[in-house]
Amino acid sequence: MADLLVVGSVALDSVATPFGKVDDALGGSATYFSYAASFFTTVRLVATVGADFPETHVRLLAGRGVDVAGLQTTPGGRTFRWVGEYGYDLNEARTLDTQLNVLASFRPDLPAALRQVPYLFLANIDPELQLDVLRQMRVRPRLVALDTMNFWITSKRAALLRVLREVDVITINDAEARQLAGEPNLIRAARAIGALGPQVVVVKRGEYGALMLASEAFFVAPAYPLESVFDPTGAGDTFAGGFMGYLASREATDRASMRRAIVHGSVMASFTVEDFSLNRLTRLAPAEIEARVAAFHDLMRVENP
Amino acid sequence: MADLLVVGSVALDSVATPFGKVDDALGGSATYFSYAASFFTTVRLVATVGADFPETHVRLLAGRGVDVAGLQTTPGGRTFRWVGEYGYDLNEARTLDTQLNVLASFRPDLPAALRQVPYLFLANIDPELQLDVLRQMRVRPRLVALDTMNFWITSKRAALLRVLREVDVITINDAEARQLAGEPNLIRAARAIGALGPQVVVVKRGEYGALMLASEAFFVAPAYPLESVFDPTGAGDTFAGGFMGYLASREATDRASMRRAIVHGSVMASFTVEDFSLNRLTRLAPAEIEARVAAFHDLMRVENP
Repeated sequence: MADLLVVGSVALDSVATPFGKVDDALGGSATYFSYAASFFTTVRLVATVGADFPETHVRLLAGRGVDVAGLQTTPGGRTFRWVGEYGYDLNEARTLDTQLNVLASFRPDLPAALRQVPYLFLANIDPELQLDVLRQMRVRPRLVALDTMNFWITSKRAALLRVLREVDVITINDAEARQLAGEPNLIRAARAIGALGPQVVVVKRGEYGALMLASEAFFVAPAYPLESVFDPTGAGDTFAGGFMGYLASREATDRASMRRAIVHGSVMASFTVEDFSLNRLTRLAPAEIEARVAAFHDLMRVENP
Repeated sequence: MADLLVVGSVALDSVATPFGKVDDALGGSATYFSYAASFFTTVRLVATVGADFPETHVRLLAGRGVDVAGLQTTPGGRTFRWVGEYGYDLNEARTLDTQLNVLASFRPDLPAALRQVPYLFLANIDPELQLDVLRQMRVRPRLVALDTMNFWITSKRAALLRVLREVDVITINDAEARQLAGEPNLIRAARAIGALGPQVVVVKRGEYGALMLASEAFFVAPAYPLESVFDPTGAGDTFAGGFMGYLASREATDRASMRRAIVHGSVMASFTVEDFSLNRLTRLAPAEIEARVAAFHDLMRVENP
């Protein structure tokens, strides 16, 4: 079991879906990632929050064994906030408001102890910061994965391309994969992104699951079939947490493990979307994960005659 | 190897996609179905065409061993025509014109020899005709599958529900599954459709593959990843042809075979969309099918550690 470092955002989200709404609920890419990964390995979190960030949220993460020493509080600052809503097509979030607050001046400075963690996830933040974090690592991690979004693809393309050359894995959603590659066909887009650096390209397709290109081979996993999806916020970051958490727990980077990691990521995401914020994850028992992983394998199993 | 009977439409399609167009090209649900299934078993086709239907098309089907004795020509009649187009989102066809022509007065009358064929596919036609065909069977087939569409769900719902009570398998696309069930969640929609009669519900999801509910268990298969999709017309019927053709060839109806049948259906559909009309299928070698089936298995294979 190897340690896993994540650098990203911790947020307070206000989300409305057709099934309800929450205000200032715990959110953020690094939050979902850490919490999900904590079921598999020891997670070290580096992020920033404001003075308004509830202590209960910190205790929630610490309670799962997440190392929160790298969670810095900016005195007088306000926590990053995201306000969004979903219609019945839960695949598409509409952003109503983004207040960067303390995230605007976030300059991650890794504590010395974290500069040789073997598994690193650069959650969705400014690619210049992602590169800066990578530069701070004293030992090149065994596996570096990165997530990004349309905003950076448009506004910081050069920096994104630079950091992409140095990572092993990219996780990205389908629309953003097409945008990054400038290619409407998803298969060609994945290949084009692989040519930018990452040996492993993981495309997140929301309710349609995930597609992975690794060493020239494609792997396609469905989303776990759910009878009710409540709020998709955080599904992608939870997926990444399950994916990287599984790999770190096995100290693996091989292709077969990558496939099992996709299954674990998909399973973790399937829990997150069953409730607002991290609510479902906070009620999650390890046995439920194991049961759903087994069900997931059955879901895609084809036996030869 | 058991015989497979299909009753459905044979058409002349005019289709425009961003990649080209064809006029009065060979199409129709029973055509795609027969041609695809002919790679696996003996297919008996029952359909109707007009006097304008090119003899070369009949020879094409007969050349693949499809029994065309049940393809009746209406003297003086015109063949069913469909005119449609696709934008870059190839998942959605826009119908520009439908001329039923001889299909409007189609009353399938099964030759005596076909009234005991053990595998039956009721392609997308009026559910009253589908029920009538089923009534004509002297021996209840081992497996009866049916396809339908939004038009019948709206205009002939009672008849559709009646025939659904008597079939084993339904193949239906995702939007139509939601419509038939009156349920936006696809998993619940599949369960609701299963409760209407069919023990096996196969939901076709275009570029996202297929989902099957069989004996309470879900199976989810991706679409074969293609670098270029040229024209999706006929993909669903080709899928059904590969699915039913495989089952008939193995004389199987068990759940494991159903899963392999989904893979074969998906593989056959992946060829159809690579060119207009049946063009790709007419150039298809059995070895290509085998290779793509093997690749498809690899695409979804997860090995336990």
